[in-house]
Amino acid sequence: MKSKINIQTIAKALGVSTSTVSKALNDSYEISQETKERILAFAQQYGYSPNPYASSLRSKKSKTIGVVIPEVGNSFFAAVIKGIESVARKKGYHVLIYLSNESFAKEQIILNEFQSGRVDGILMSLALETNAFGHVEKLMEKGIPTVFFDRTPYSIIASKVVTNDFELGYHATQHLLNKGCQKIAYLLHRHHQGHSHQRMEGFRQALADTQIQLLPSQLIYCDSNVDNISITSALQQGRFDGLIVSAEELVTPLYQVCKKQQISIPQQLKVLSFCDFPLATVLTPTLTTIKHPAFQMGETAASTLFKQIDKPQGLTNEVIVLRSEIIERESTQG
Amino acid sequence: MKSKINIQTIAKALGVSTSTVSKALNDSYEISQETKERILAFAQQYGYSPNPYASSLRSKKSKTIGVVIPEVGNSFFAAVIKGIESVARKKGYHVLIYLSNESFAKEQIILNEFQSGRVDGILMSLALETNAFGHVEKLMEKGIPTVFFDRTPYSIIASKVVTNDFELGYHATQHLLNKGCQKIAYLLHRHHQGHSHQRMEGFRQALADTQIQLLPSQLIYCDSNVDNISITSALQQGRFDGLIVSAEELVTPLYQVCKKQQISIPQQLKVLSFCDFPLATVLTPTLTTIKHPAFQMGETAASTLFKQIDKPQGLTNEVIVLRSEIIERESTQG
Repeated sequence: MKSKINIQTIAKALGVSTSTVSKALNDSYEISQETKERILAFAQQYGYSPNPYASSLRSKKSKTIGVVIPEVGNSFFAAVIKGIESVARKKGYHVLIYLSNESFAKEQIILNEFQSGRVDGILMSLALETNAFGHVEKLMEKGIPTVFFDRTPYSIIASKVVTNDFELGYHATQHLLNKGCQKIAYLLHRHHQGHSHQRMEGFRQALADTQIQLLPSQLIYCDSNVDNISITSALQQGRFDGLIVSAEELVTPLYQVCKKQQISIPQQLKVLSFCDFPLATVLTPTLTTIKHPAFQMGETAASTLFKQIDKPQGLTNEVIVLRSEIIERESTQG
Repeated sequence: MKSKINIQTIAKALGVSTSTVSKALNDSYEISQETKERILAFAQQYGYSPNPYASSLRSKKSKTIGVVIPEVGNSFFAAVIKGIESVARKKGYHVLIYLSNESFAKEQIILNEFQSGRVDGILMSLALETNAFGHVEKLMEKGIPTVFFDRTPYSIIASKVVTNDFELGYHATQHLLNKGCQKIAYLLHRHHQGHSHQRMEGFRQALADTQIQLLPSQLIYCDSNVDNISITSALQQGRFDGLIVSAEELVTPLYQVCKKQQISIPQQLKVLSFCDFPLATVLTPTLTTIKHPAFQMGETAASTLFKQIDKPQGLTNEVIVLRSEIIERESTQG
């Protein structure tokens, strides 16, 4: 192990003051380029890295943004994060990812943690369980720059980047109606919130506009441990001719049930998924999906956040709506 | 906005010394349970949260572990993270996720950052691009507890949690040989490293043990922007009867090419994937995969790390090998 290098030892070795070293390492305009380079080269050679806690206390900036997402292993959030990172990299910021695992309790703990100033700004998509927003309100009161994306707290005034959820639900339903479906089911998580409400409202409205009454049996709720039995019995009893899958992880159980019960897609049941993912193109039949501008959502949310970080005063809350589009494949044809 | 609460205001309000407040908040044995509860209740009521940077400087612990993974949107790493979190939660630690995006440069930046003590320990799986380990060696020299998992630096002595990669490659190949395959291709990323080497060595050995010579054309390399053209031409020229897919994201292009070129799986080409994921069960044909103990790998890596954090002296490096198993499905039948 090397002996410990600090600002004092660097100053002594190079015959300059500690304040010169400190200013040089902080890229101060008071120090000449030549001196800066000499000090940086020495610091690098001897593996000196400033303590981030100490330097954060001085600058009050952590140069870090926190991203709260409900889960990993999901193509949508993976693409959003790539978009966020592409913007953060240019600004010289680190991106830290916090997982709520769809848990309201975990989300509260994470937000509580943020109150103490560990990050300079927050990008957040809510957990499925979250239906109350006290923890979000508390965070906003602290004045930490925050932008919500995709799953946002509908009752809170804040900057948000969303897709046109109501329209999506409406157009998806219209797509199935245009294909001749008359009895459309809607497959969703038991805990659902904000954006799925909007999509479901679009679904309701599209049916209402076609004088079709929505029966409770058309909403098929799945528990977090998705069990195929509830889907099987709902499909058997409902005799649906169309179905909207509202979450990526519900596609596998649906295809499993249809295969086992010999329900042929699209002949007997036309299926549309609110989530797009690469394997949708090789399923049998290939799956009609809605393609969300996930990378762009990450970019936009991060850019909006940096506007807040750079100019915390006098910014109005922006709600930016991005457009998603239906990618028609075999599962809704014929 | 509330007025700022700090240790001084709490002390004044409750008529105790600031040192009593500080000790109570740090759960010191010097303070009575009753006083602790009174102080905690007050702190909570007025939304006091200690500055983590300041308290980290005092305790020299951030109560945070950093997890470096190459990508999100992958079922394997998603399950590993769940395993890590289940252990960290019990220990009262935060888990922060750092993404290398398979980039060697990004990985170097992240590890450099860690040198300054932002986290108490590191769990890490290497980027595909990483073939040199100077940045890892530098980190190890600093004495920060570190455990590698899945993709590990083969030439570095460190604690590692891995699967039996060589055996996996060997058994997967044997599985295809037993099904009658004679000319087996191996689909992989151009940048591959450590663990894939071991798996590929197992593949080579299994062929050698059956007196089959491995031709260079049997290794089909894909660029990071996977293009179907190179897979198509390799399959057309190679006339393979078996194929091993070495990464989850290569399954979609392979199935796309086979569909387009009317190569029927498993009749003409038997396919086995080194990665298991839910949709493997609904592909046509369903895909034979290797199921890795991903959650268990996360648990084991985290437990090993906490042993190091709790007792930094005198620990030997452990290499723990977990077992994976072949899940046979339709793609290798017949």
